[in-house]
This record gives sequence, C-alpha cells and structure tokens, in this order.
Amino acid sequence: MSGNTLGTLFRVTNFGESHGPAIGCVVDGCPPGLALSEADIQIELDRRRPGTSRHVTQRQESDRVEILSGVFEGHTTGTPIGLLIRNIDARSKDYSNIAETFRPGHADYSYFKKYGVRDPRGGGRSSARLTAPTVAAGAIAKKWLRENFGTQVRGYMSALGPIPLDFVSWEHVETNPFFAADPSRVQELEEYMDALRKAGDSVGARIEVIAEGVPVGWGAPIYDRLDADIAHAMMGLNAVKGVEIGAGFRSVAQRGSEHGDEMTPDGFLTNNAGGVLGGISTGQPVCVSLAIKPTSSIRTERRSVDKAGQAVMVQTLGRHDPCVGIRATPIAEALLALVLADHALLDRALCGTVLRR
Amino acid sequence: MSGNTLGTLFRVTNFGESHGPAIGCVVDGCPPGLALSEADIQIELDRRRPGTSRHVTQRQESDRVEILSGVFEGHTTGTPIGLLIRNIDARSKDYSNIAETFRPGHADYSYFKKYGVRDPRGGGRSSARLTAPTVAAGAIAKKWLRENFGTQVRGYMSALGPIPLDFVSWEHVETNPFFAADPSRVQELEEYMDALRKAGDSVGARIEVIAEGVPVGWGAPIYDRLDADIAHAMMGLNAVKGVEIGAGFRSVAQRGSEHGDEMTPDGFLTNNAGGVLGGISTGQPVCVSLAIKPTSSIRTERRSVDKAGQAVMVQTLGRHDPCVGIRATPIAEALLALVLADHALLDRALCGTVLRR
Amino acid sequence: MSGNTLGTLFRVTNFGESHGPAIGCVVDGCPPGLALSEADIQIELDRRRPGTSRHVTQRQESDRVEILSGVFEGHTTGTPIGLLIRNIDARSKDYSNIAETFRPGHADYSYFKKYGVRDPRGGGRSSARLTAPTVAAGAIAKKWLRENFGTQVRGYMSALGPIPLDFVSWEHVETNPFFAADPSRVQELEEYMDALRKAGDSVGARIEVIAEGVPVGWGAPIYDRLDADIAHAMMGLNAVKGVEIGAGFRSVAQRGSEHGDEMTPDGFLTNNAGGVLGGISTGQPVCVSLAIKPTSSIRTERRSVDKAGQAVMVQTLGRHDPCVGIRATPIAEALLALVLADHALLDRALCGTVLRR
Amino acid sequence: MSGNTLGTLFRVTNFGESHGPAIGCVVDGCPPGLALSEADIQIELDRRRPGTSRHVTQRQESDRVEILSGVFEGHTTGTPIGLLIRNIDARSKDYSNIAETFRPGHADYSYFKKYGVRDPRGGGRSSARLTAPTVAAGAIAKKWLRENFGTQVRGYMSALGPIPLDFVSWEHVETNPFFAADPSRVQELEEYMDALRKAGDSVGARIEVIAEGVPVGWGAPIYDRLDADIAHAMMGLNAVKGVEIGAGFRSVAQRGSEHGDEMTPDGFLTNNAGGVLGGISTGQPVCVSLAIKPTSSIRTERRSVDKAGQAVMVQTLGRHDPCVGIRATPIAEALLALVLADHALLDRALCGTVLRR
Repeated sequence: MSGNTLGTLFRVTNFGESHGPAIGCVVDGCPPGLALSEADIQIELDRRRPGTSRHVTQRQESDRVEILSGVFEGHTTGTPIGLLIRNIDARSKDYSNIAETFRPGHADYSYFKKYGVRDPRGGGRSSARLTAPTVAAGAIAKKWLRENFGTQVRGYMSALGPIPLDFVSWEHVETNPFFAADPSRVQELEEYMDALRKAGDSVGARIEVIAEGVPVGWGAPIYDRLDADIAHAMMGLNAVKGVEIGAGFRSVAQRGSEHGDEMTPDGFLTNNAGGVLGGISTGQPVCVSLAIKPTSSIRTERRSVDKAGQAVMVQTLGRHDPCVGIRATPIAEALLALVLADHALLDRALCGTVLRR
Repeated sequence: MSGNTLGTLFRVTNFGESHGPAIGCVVDGCPPGLALSEADIQIELDRRRPGTSRHVTQRQESDRVEILSGVFEGHTTGTPIGLLIRNIDARSKDYSNIAETFRPGHADYSYFKKYGVRDPRGGGRSSARLTAPTVAAGAIAKKWLRENFGTQVRGYMSALGPIPLDFVSWEHVETNPFFAADPSRVQELEEYMDALRKAGDSVGARIEVIAEGVPVGWGAPIYDRLDADIAHAMMGLNAVKGVEIGAGFRSVAQRGSEHGDEMTPDGFLTNNAGGVLGGISTGQPVCVSLAIKPTSSIRTERRSVDKAGQAVMVQTLGRHDPCVGIRATPIAEALLALVLADHALLDRALCGTVLRR
Repeated sequence: MSGNTLGTLFRVTNFGESHGPAIGCVVDGCPPGLALSEADIQIELDRRRPGTSRHVTQRQESDRVEILSGVFEGHTTGTPIGLLIRNIDARSKDYSNIAETFRPGHADYSYFKKYGVRDPRGGGRSSARLTAPTVAAGAIAKKWLRENFGTQVRGYMSALGPIPLDFVSWEHVETNPFFAADPSRVQELEEYMDALRKAGDSVGARIEVIAEGVPVGWGAPIYDRLDADIAHAMMGLNAVKGVEIGAGFRSVAQRGSEHGDEMTPDGFLTNNAGGVLGGISTGQPVCVSLAIKPTSSIRTERRSVDKAGQAVMVQTLGRHDPCVGIRATPIAEALLALVLADHALLDRALCGTVLRR
Repeated sequence: MSGNTLGTLFRVTNFGESHGPAIGCVVDGCPPGLALSEADIQIELDRRRPGTSRHVTQRQESDRVEILSGVFEGHTTGTPIGLLIRNIDARSKDYSNIAETFRPGHADYSYFKKYGVRDPRGGGRSSARLTAPTVAAGAIAKKWLRENFGTQVRGYMSALGPIPLDFVSWEHVETNPFFAADPSRVQELEEYMDALRKAGDSVGARIEVIAEGVPVGWGAPIYDRLDADIAHAMMGLNAVKGVEIGAGFRSVAQRGSEHGDEMTPDGFLTNNAGGVLGGISTGQPVCVSLAIKPTSSIRTERRSVDKAGQAVMVQTLGRHDPCVGIRATPIAEALLALVLADHALLDRALCGTVLRR
C-alpha cells in the first residue's frame, strides 16, 4: 500500500518512471463481457499525448498501448487487464544537472528526503508522464460506464492563467489544443502561450469535469463518499492544488435558502450540490472543478539548494509543458470515470437487490 | 468496504446514527505505549459538542466517551481502541414528518434511492453528529503526533458567510464560539448569527487547518499522495464542497516564477505548496482550506417532493446548527491529524531505514 | 491495518480484551433490508457461550449483545452495525502472576516482544473470548446467506483428541456439548473429558464445517481465491494449526484419475474439490476441516522463563477450557459464513450482469 | 479488489494468462535502497521454469524477466517495480477442444459459470503459469528479508504421491528435479514418475517450507495473524488443498502438556507452534506444510459435460506436469517470503519504536 493503486473494486495499479523502459498499469475489477480493443484506449491516450501542439512539451512519444492480458476474443474476461506503454523519446542526459539540486516547486526535495534515493531523469516517478497509464485505465472505465449506464464523462478548460473561459458548447472542446469550450477565445490563448513560452515562464489553469447520466445512489455516507473519492483522485493528480464539487467555494457566502437545490416532480431546479448529497449521487450531473498550479520546470533562474544544502541558482532546461493544465482535461476525465466505475461496483455489491434496479 | 473506515494503517471505523442508542468508532493501528485516558479525548469532544453557545444546535449531549479496549494501565497496547458515546438527548418525534419527504440540500433523497430504506430520525447516519467519533479518534492521532514528532494541528474559521476573518493569533481561537482568530470581529459574528437565526436561514463558512512540525517525507507520489488523502478526508466531512492545499485556486492565475517556493540554506522562502510537493511533505506547515456549505435544515419553506414523487413544501423544524461551519474546526483538525498519523506509519513502514532518521 | 478487520465488502472490525469493560465489533457492508434483531444474533452467541457444561470454562458470561446501529425498525439499513457485549465475570486477580512469566504455548511471549506492553488479564486480546464478536457478526452473515441464497452453514466435531467421531446426522449436533454428530459416542466423550480435567491437562480437536447451497461462481482465480480466504479466516482463529478443503492432505497420495471429480448431466459424482475449483465455488458443498491444538493454559507444571529471562516453572490456574475445540464449531461456522457473504458481494460487484443470474 | 493482489504493504498485483502475450506483476512497497538486478530474480524463476526435466511440462519458456520500473542505478527506489515475462511457446491450437467441455478437477466449469466467458487457451488465467510472477516478486522479498534480517526461506518436497521423503540436508534440494532433501530416494522418484507418465495419470505431493531467522514480533492477534496470512497465501496457490503450521493436524491428538513448547533461558525446547504463537512470530523457524492435489489435466478418459450440459468423455492432451507439486517448492518459498516481508513492514509501522529494536 505504497499508494500506487486507485480504487477499491475497479482498481488501477500504476508503475513506471519518465525515462525508464516502460510505463503502464494493471486494471483489476473490470467486469467481464465489455468489448475492448487497443483502439478504444488509444483514442484517449492520443488526447493526452505530448507533442501535439507547440504549446506542450515537444517530447515525441507515440504512447502506443499494448493490452497484455484480460481480453479474449475482443472482450474483457473479468481478470486483470495489463497495459504497457514503452518510453521512446527519453533523453536522460538532459537531466544530469538536476540530480544534485532541488528545483523550486518540484518534488525533487521531498523525494530525496523520503527515499534517500531518486531517479532524477525527467522527474522520474513524479513526472506527469505517469498520468498516461491513468488515462489508459480511464478509457476502459469510460467505455464501461457508457455502455452500462449511459454515463458520459467530459471536461474542458475554464481558465488559462488569468483568462477565464466560458462554456459555449462541447463540440468545440476537441477542436483546439486547450480543450476550451469557447472557440472565440482560442486565438487569445495561442498568443498568451506564445508570449509565456518566450518569457521562459509557466502558468496555472482551471479545469471543469462533468459526468452526465450518473444514476442516483452511488456513494456512501461517511469517509468514502463519492465526493470524497473524487477529491482524492483529483488531488492525487500532479499539480492540482484545489478541488470543488458543485458550488464549491461559492458555498461559503451562500445562504441555505439559496444553496439547497429545490426539487419538483420534474426534477431538481438547480445543481449547487454538483450531483452529490450526503456523499451519494443524486442523478444530476456530477460537476468537479480543479485548480492546477503552474509548471515547476521553467527557464527562469530561481534560488535553491543542492544536496549538500548549499545555495545554488536553478534554471530548468529540457522539454516541458509551459502549462501542465493544457493536457489535464483528458486526465481529469479519466480519474472521474475511474471513481464512478468503482462506486458503480460498490453500489451493486451493497445494494444490488434494492428494487429501484 | 462500505466506506465507513478512514486510513490504511492508523484507521478509524465509524458507526452509529443520530438517534440510535450510541455512536462510536474503533481506532486500529495506534502504536503501543502512548499514554491515553478518556480525558485526552474528552477535551476535543467538548470543543465540538452541541449546545455550547446559542449559535449552534441546542440539542443537549454531554458526549461522554468511554474507552472500551486497547488501553491498559493508562497506555495504548497496540490493539484496537473501541470508543463509545451514548446518545442522550434524542427526540425522534421531531422527525416523523421528514420520513415521507425529501429536504432540499439534504441526503434524504439520495439515501432513500440508494438503500431503499433509511433512518430519518435526526438525519440518521447522514447527521453531522457522526463527526463526534471522528473527533474522538482524531484526539488520539493528535496526541500521538505531538508526542512523537512535535506535530501540532490547529484550525480556525477564516470566513463566516460573507464575512472574511483574518488570522490574528492562535490564542484567540478558543476564546469565542466561532473558532475565529481575530477577536475584533466576534461581536459582528454574534450579531450576524442572531439575525440569521431569526430569519430562519443558514449560511456557509470557510475553515483553515494547519499542521506545523510535520517532518519532510510523509506521502507518496501517485494516487495516495499526502494531499490527496487530505482532500479525501476533508471532502468526506459533511457539507464540505471544496478543498485547497496551499495557494489552492489562487494557483490558477499564478506564474511558475511566482508559485514555486524558492529555497535557501535557511529553508523555504514561501509556502504556496502548502507543505506538500509531489504528494510528499516538505517539512513546511501543511495548510488546508475548506468550503462548508450552509446547513440544509432551515425553517424557510422550500419546494420538494415526497416519496410518491408529489410536489410538497418542506420546512425543517427541530434543533439545527444555523451554520454547521461553526463546529467544523475541531473536526477538520481531527481529520488532518488522522491523515498525518496514517502517513507517518506508512512512511515508517516503507522508509524506516532511510538514514535521515 | 493492524489486522483486526476481516473481509473486503462484508467486513467485521473486532475490538476488546478478555477482562476489559466490553468486547464487540462493527459489521460494515451488510446489505440493506435484512430483518435483524438481537435475538437472531443471541442464538449463535449462546451456542459459543462459556459455562454451558462442565467441560468448558466455568466463567459466567451471559454474552448479551446490544445492537448499537445499522438497524431501523427491525431491518438493516446498509450502514455499519455496531455490536456490543459487556464483560461481566472478569476476575483479574487470577492473572496477576502471569504478568511476569510466559506460559508455554501461549501468546504471552510473542505479544510482549512485539508490543513491549500487554494486558495479561485473561490473556488480554489473545483470549478466545474475542471470538464472541466474530460469532455475532457471523450470525448476521448466516442469516443473510440463508435468506438470499438458501445457503446453510453447519459444523460438527470430527475428533476429540484421539477419538474420531463419525458424521451420523445433523440433528444430533445440537443435543450434546461437543457438537458431535454421532450420539453413540457422547458418553465416551464425557468420560474422556472428566479424566482429562482431573489430570490437569488439555487436548486438541478436529472440526468440520460445511456450507450447502453455495451458488457456483463465488471466488477469484489468484491470491484471494474462495479457498484462500477460507484458509485465512480459519487459521486466524485461536489455536487452529491446520486447514483442509475437500480431500485436503489425502490429495497428496491420490492420482488425478481418482481426485478429479467427474461430472454428469446430473451433477458432480464426488467432491474431492470440497466445492472449490480454481479458487471459485462449483455449487457443491464447501467442505472445510480444522485442526485445533490443545489449550495452552493447563494446571500441569511446565518449564518457562520470566520477563528477565530467568528459568521458572509455570502452572496455569484460573478458569480455562480443557479443550478449546469444544466451543470451536459455532465459531468456525461464523467464519465460513463471513467469507462466503464477502465473496457473494464481490461476485455481485464484478459479475452482477452475467446472464446466469 | 478482484483478488489479484497479495499483501498489504509489500504487495504484488499479478496479471496475465497462459497463452496471452505476456504475464507479469507490479511489486509495490519494496523499500528503497535494495540492490536489485534482473539476475536476482531470474535465479528463482529458473528454479520454477518448465522444461527443465522430463518429469515436468515440456513447454519451452525461457521466462526471461524484464524490470520495467522501480530500480535506478541498481537499487530499488521505493516506487513500484514492474516485472514483465513474455510468453514464448504458446500453442493455442492444442486447446481448441477444451473450449466446449469442462475438464474434471479443473477450473473450466467454475470460471465459465462465474464470468460467462473464459480464455481456454492453456487454462487461461487458471494456469499454474501465473505462478511465475509470484516467484519473481518473491525473489525480491527473499532478498530484502535476507539482507535486512538474515531471514532465509527454503523448502523441499516431503512426499511425492505415496512416497514419503525425509529431510536429510538442504544441500541436496537443488541437486534433483524434485527438490527432495534425501538423495537416496531420487532414483525411486524418477522411476515412479516415468511409470506415472506412461499411465497417463498424475499424482499429488507434499511440500515443506521453512523460514529461519524470522525475528520475534511479526504478526497480529486477530484475523490478519501471521499464520492466517501464510495460510491465505498458500491456499491461494493452484492445487493446494491443505495447509499446516507447525504440528498441524497432529495437534488434534496431542495433549497440552505435549504440544505447548517449553522455554528455557537458552530458548524453546520444541517447535510444535511452527514459529507462531497467538498469530505472532516467536523467533523460532516458521514451518509450513502444503498438500498439493494431482494435476487435473491427464490423458486418462473421464466423464464430464459440455457447455450445453450434455455428457461427454474428456481426455486432456497437450503438455502438462504429471505432478504440479514438483515445481511447487520455489513457489511456496516465494509466497512465504512475500507474507513475511509484508508483516515485517506492518510490524515496523506499528511497533517501530518498541525498544527491542
């Protein structure tokens, strides 16, 4: 239980480092009978893949996934699904200088102090590259949810640094490298990113993830609530510093007569709850917001110390995303899908005979 | 794994309902040799107890805790600590009308749909009363952390509805019913709450929880990160709708050159990270913010439906906190202490021989 | 995860010591809607209770169980069921001398070395008294299995020390204090035990536990197989030194043409498998055998050491079962029921949509 | 939690099928700083490998292991260790007829009924081939135990079918294909196996596994005892039908004055306990016995049914071990090492500050 497993029943165990031979995961608990091919997974990996625009890292990884087990004649068998992605474009020499110093905002210092040893190549295990297996596993969860419950999990970027981005329509999200849902702002985002890259700096972002078609009844009252497990999954993603469900921090200044979502025979009138009441889904869309911090690896010089505790100046060269939030949307979707699939199974176990089904 | 257990190694299993005979928990994994008495636990329960000011529910519960096991001759034995709190002042008749209708913003609807049955008395298992066992367990974690690592976990209210509250000093926090750290605002808070109560409405709040003296090295890289487990614990608390670590949602608009905390031989210069980098503690204070929604149980009439799906108007009488956030500070402290104690043990298991110790 | 929880989905967390104020458990994961009263649990506790014949310990414990939570209007709610049993007849003075020496065959030595502290009164946590909460939890699992699947879990003693005991019929099992299924041997057992007690010695026993009406399909291929989880539960019971499924150790000398159970359109012809193939139930009766060692607490003097490592002679007075195997049958039944209920839920989660259902 | 993970802190997640592209596992929780190369793992895999004598399956698998992660510059980093073994010599055509019928004694029937689908090629997931990743993981546990505690885990065959095999000395175990510790019986074993193979039949075996140098104090009192977790791991191994600790089933007929191991200032005088008292290690050797059933895949014709429930005669051709027990010794060693490593970490977490260390 060193932390590399997500989920109780629909569970993913993640392995790998940025510059090791391969990364991957084992998905255990996917029910039998789901039609599944590598193409089903590849489509999600391609959304997260590096090198697809000038605004993300230029590392060239095809991120081809190989299914090693758990699928027979095109369908899942109910046994573990092993997924493998070879690292292709690792340039370990880029990172030799990092081995001795700690980059501000990076995991270098805390890793070194914890383990007494660390793989510094490309950030080793702390690299955002390790979100690829999560996305691969999430692709399976997404498909299983869609086929069994009609659940649809989608996300978009709602702010790039200081630029807020409205939701206009889902159809735009896949047509720009930012996963923005407002096509009128894409030009502005491109220019902002070009300037940022020239400045050798980085910036944060805000992401919304929404699951529609979640049945009422998934979750639990105390501790492992649906919203708690969502918060866990999201805050477990690199660079996330904040998570909201529904009205989130706006709830602080709300009154009860405003916040509590009224119901009519036709359904809820509002969704301040974000689809979760008492830790259990209500049947409304599950709405999650994430705050993603700016990338720690920047070309700007910063003060730090080395392993010996001596003052040094650190400048991070190599290939990096100037805004890790840009590629975060498909990852956040994967995480939400994984949590939902897990709770779908937990609910089926506990309440499978309740008459609503 | 129906969700009522928190933690992997230092773990709490919670049971009970608001109006059942008793509530309590089992704390499994507390190391042997800790001096522990009921008084150590009672002091924290008394901070959370109802009826201590006119601004919280007037239900009269002494919340006397009984240690049933795991302590011998005043010290923990390393075996499970059973904790029991009898419910004294349950007035189940107050809730007879709730059994047939769903209160807006409350767990009534999602519970009923999930389980097909629910205990409506006082909210049953969804009641904030079930945070008392969490506080009791947290008192043990707090003491163990303090004695073994010098870790101190404290919290305060940083906003009551629309009123922001600065941090002035820890010494003020225990001198007012709001856990506010600014004594100059207490009068204003009293008046605000009196007006709110008269209006039959409720309001949200914001809480800060801070752990000082956390050693560097607690946490894990992926999934079960320290910050992820904190987010899980906090979002698992009734009424919480948002969680931030360090700079939180302010990170969105920050640049990397601003967010990344620089280091010198004398330590970090800032703490945007909130004490966690790459999922692992840095040795800086661990800083967490919570958004707490307004109480759902209000006297104001609201639209809803009954079990048969027919439109009804709902008005919640009985005894309720007009701001559940007021009593949330000791609970949030308990949750943070429990997560830290768990990660202390996980770290000792995995890295116990690393030379830093 | 200090080991005091059994099961993944239908799970029991056990607490207490032999001479503490109370023992009990939390049963989390019992599905909602099961009719449940204290009488349903008491009937199983009474089968295990001490003091019911002259062949078991004369400690007088009524073992009255109190349901603290999880049941509303006579039915389970799907939330944790807290169970409490007060210790009544604790005579701690009997054990003052044990605190300084280690009884041969007892847990005294290993506990002291592990924890550095131990509760010596009545064996503290290592006492067989702690099987009472397991029996209480098992009563719930038994009822749930019976009502949902028609599964019936029963056991009997198949050897008392050197005396083998045939299975004649289930109807005899509850008519003698040994849970023997052959009424013609009861007189012999009574005389054997009387002589043993006079000799101040103890003896082992063998127990068979059988579950009929287990559906095909419960279990898993690797690691957490149904038979593996049964072995875990049984070997986790005090004094158990061996576990067999089906043909057990007889399999060693069998040929494949003898061991492999043939099938016909009318079903299996034999049951060497003991109802489990490849870790998954076959629909045949699940058959388990246990070896239980002789009680360690005997009046016969034996060589040992004290805390300082000095040689001492130890003689254990006080009230003890001369054959702990006599009361083991209801406990073994409870454990088998708990494992089966857990796998029933796991199977429903993973394969709930498979068409056989 | 579909069962494919073993251990709590030192944990293995296994994936793969007999005739899929690859098998493997993720070892999570191995502490940082252990020197580890593929050669350390290969040496154990080679002991289990098929095709090494005429008495085991003639399938040709080199079982070359690739370390995918978790090792940097020859040492473990404390992050997950991904292990991959490609399947080379899969002949899926051999198994086409099995797809429609259920082999007696095999997992075919229970799998099909559980999952509604199964991979029949070489037994799919139920194949003993899936013990290879367990052996690979166990090699890491073995090395970690040896280097940190001087613990040595070894095993030998103590009976091949009806032929009992004494322990003469460890040095002989690796010099014959049976892992027999008595060189004088090897010729007899060879002849027995030759005759058995000609007869188209199979036979069972008995294995002893012993861990020396286990410190006192590993384990827990209730449920997850050291012996319980050992029984779980062993009974989770294909074909195991019985597990004993120490005196095992001989305890049934023993008296307390015979069974309880006396202590002197120089240590224990006997080891009926098998190194575990009250679920916790005593510092004596941990002794485990396993009963392994005869291989289900035999050339002898047997009665069975097909998917449609019609009577058929089944004869299993293809390449099979006539005694799966022959290759079981290194697997049982691996399992014991994995359980011990897990409990070493659990003990360090809970009792790391107890003064004995």
